[in-house]
Amino acid sequence: MEHMSSPPARTASLTAPDWEAICGAHARIAPHIHRTPVLTSASLDAMVGARVFFKCENLQKTCSFKIRGASNAIFSLSEKEIARGIVTQSSGNHGAAVACAAAWRGAPAWIVMPKNAPAVKRLAIEGYGGRVTLCEPTMTARTEASDRILAETGALMIHPYDDDRVIAGQATAGKELLEQVADLDAVFAPVSGGGLLSGTCLGATGISPNVRVFGCEPAQADDAYRSIQTGTLQSMDSTDTIADGLRASLSARTFAILREHVAGILRVTEAEIISTMRLVWERMKIIIEPSSAVAIAPLLKPDVLANLGLPARADGGKLKLGVIFSGGNVDLSALPF
Amino acid sequence: MEHMSSPPARTASLTAPDWEAICGAHARIAPHIHRTPVLTSASLDAMVGARVFFKCENLQKTCSFKIRGASNAIFSLSEKEIARGIVTQSSGNHGAAVACAAAWRGAPAWIVMPKNAPAVKRLAIEGYGGRVTLCEPTMTARTEASDRILAETGALMIHPYDDDRVIAGQATAGKELLEQVADLDAVFAPVSGGGLLSGTCLGATGISPNVRVFGCEPAQADDAYRSIQTGTLQSMDSTDTIADGLRASLSARTFAILREHVAGILRVTEAEIISTMRLVWERMKIIIEPSSAVAIAPLLKPDVLANLGLPARADGGKLKLGVIFSGGNVDLSALPF
Repeated sequence: MEHMSSPPARTASLTAPDWEAICGAHARIAPHIHRTPVLTSASLDAMVGARVFFKCENLQKTCSFKIRGASNAIFSLSEKEIARGIVTQSSGNHGAAVACAAAWRGAPAWIVMPKNAPAVKRLAIEGYGGRVTLCEPTMTARTEASDRILAETGALMIHPYDDDRVIAGQATAGKELLEQVADLDAVFAPVSGGGLLSGTCLGATGISPNVRVFGCEPAQADDAYRSIQTGTLQSMDSTDTIADGLRASLSARTFAILREHVAGILRVTEAEIISTMRLVWERMKIIIEPSSAVAIAPLLKPDVLANLGLPARADGGKLKLGVIFSGGNVDLSALPF
Repeated sequence: MEHMSSPPARTASLTAPDWEAICGAHARIAPHIHRTPVLTSASLDAMVGARVFFKCENLQKTCSFKIRGASNAIFSLSEKEIARGIVTQSSGNHGAAVACAAAWRGAPAWIVMPKNAPAVKRLAIEGYGGRVTLCEPTMTARTEASDRILAETGALMIHPYDDDRVIAGQATAGKELLEQVADLDAVFAPVSGGGLLSGTCLGATGISPNVRVFGCEPAQADDAYRSIQTGTLQSMDSTDTIADGLRASLSARTFAILREHVAGILRVTEAEIISTMRLVWERMKIIIEPSSAVAIAPLLKPDVLANLGLPARADGGKLKLGVIFSGGNVDLSALPF
């Protein structure tokens, strides 16, 4: 993608869901998903130096936010369309979400996943009735495998993030968070392909126009950081971060939304991801996967919050921050601590 | 206590908190504690064959329900009383709760705990500013140690369960659960000294008079089961169940409430506690301690639910059951699985 030297133009293929689409998605999926709780922790507040509100999508159906986008896309399909079945590529959580939502509609789902994804995620997909095809952990291999299945089955593709229906669904997490805690100063979400982060930009600002949305990313998979810094979509074909949900790259569609709306991208090391994950388990008594830890890890580092340029609150109180915990799918037999 | 051959008479020392005391406790502690979420799990519903609503006191302040009773007792004290400081005996969670609530009032707390309590619980108590005294893991040793501190300091004792203020506080968990999910058919709570279970009987039936309340207990620490079966308070000086929060015995006060209100006591093995704990971690993505697992473990066994004598629902639907997860304090460095 290095040949793209100028920002992508908004064309028919680079749309973004509008507020009506996001509200429509929320109404469509609400009967099927959890309105997840927002938890707080006095000890984490003290460490961050702010009031932090954690949107717990690890406690969502299929244990990640991915069911929001997948179910919005799948419940948008006609009876005739869904009967053809669904194909997707996924590092795990989107695959589980597609398998689950397809099963809710009685349709088959074929899931292409990289062979280095955790065994626990593969088992979850198969538990929902999904049909798994393993491939090499590269974007190229994923695409080849899914193209082959599409050709063989006639099924419909639901991309993990390069799809307005999926982005509109993911936007409902940030929308809900701002409905639950209206006056947040900023929201932090992990970024991989950008579906959650671009959705959070649209969903959170739809409720509270002044809220600033930041992306959080492993330094070992920092294509979003580099793309925003350079103004040009950066590629990243293969990564090995422990945050197995954050190994994908932005698409032109999600990059366009982020360029317009995101306040910044914050990077964290592998060691910071692991220590933060354990800290959250110990203090909050919830199980988060490494990708979730990425969204709070930057705020535990000295001076990061102070240098984000957030304006002081009118009420004189400490900043109110939202953090989206994206998922909780961890193999308990292979903890990194 | 084997000399007690007849049911304890209701005397001045065997009172129980009335509904006004429970509502007063709730109003007193609500500004300080979390209104904890009630979570559900489709996969656990399928395993139990009912709709199960989990009241997550593992996500409470100090990570257990104990803060409800401790803070009710401590915020009931006058300035002059609290200035003397607090003493208590505790296997850990009550000690942490007393230390935390005492700190909220700026008072010292001395905590007597058995030396086999998990290191993580001792660290938590010290983190709240509590002063720990270790003793042998017997009721006799606990009493001797706390009596000595009482004599030396002039502080006030807050017993973990043999205290109406504490029972009224614990009752607010069941009261809240029934406020959150009104039409439960039954509620299941772990039983140790009986503070949570007797409180749940009073708090839950105060909202929904027909709800049946069951206690759940490790078979290796089954004094409540034996007491209810025989109609006579049974003693149990020492136990070694993995459910470290459930090693105490009923008092005459809690036994009197349970005799009047509890629908039954269900026992589980150590293996059932461990496998259930892991199952909840995996399926619900929350960290529960072994004592919490005890409250759902019986319902995962074949035929247990069917034989509880619960009437069919008027709406023809599956039974709606409440389960109180009592706490989440586990040493992540020493998991039993």
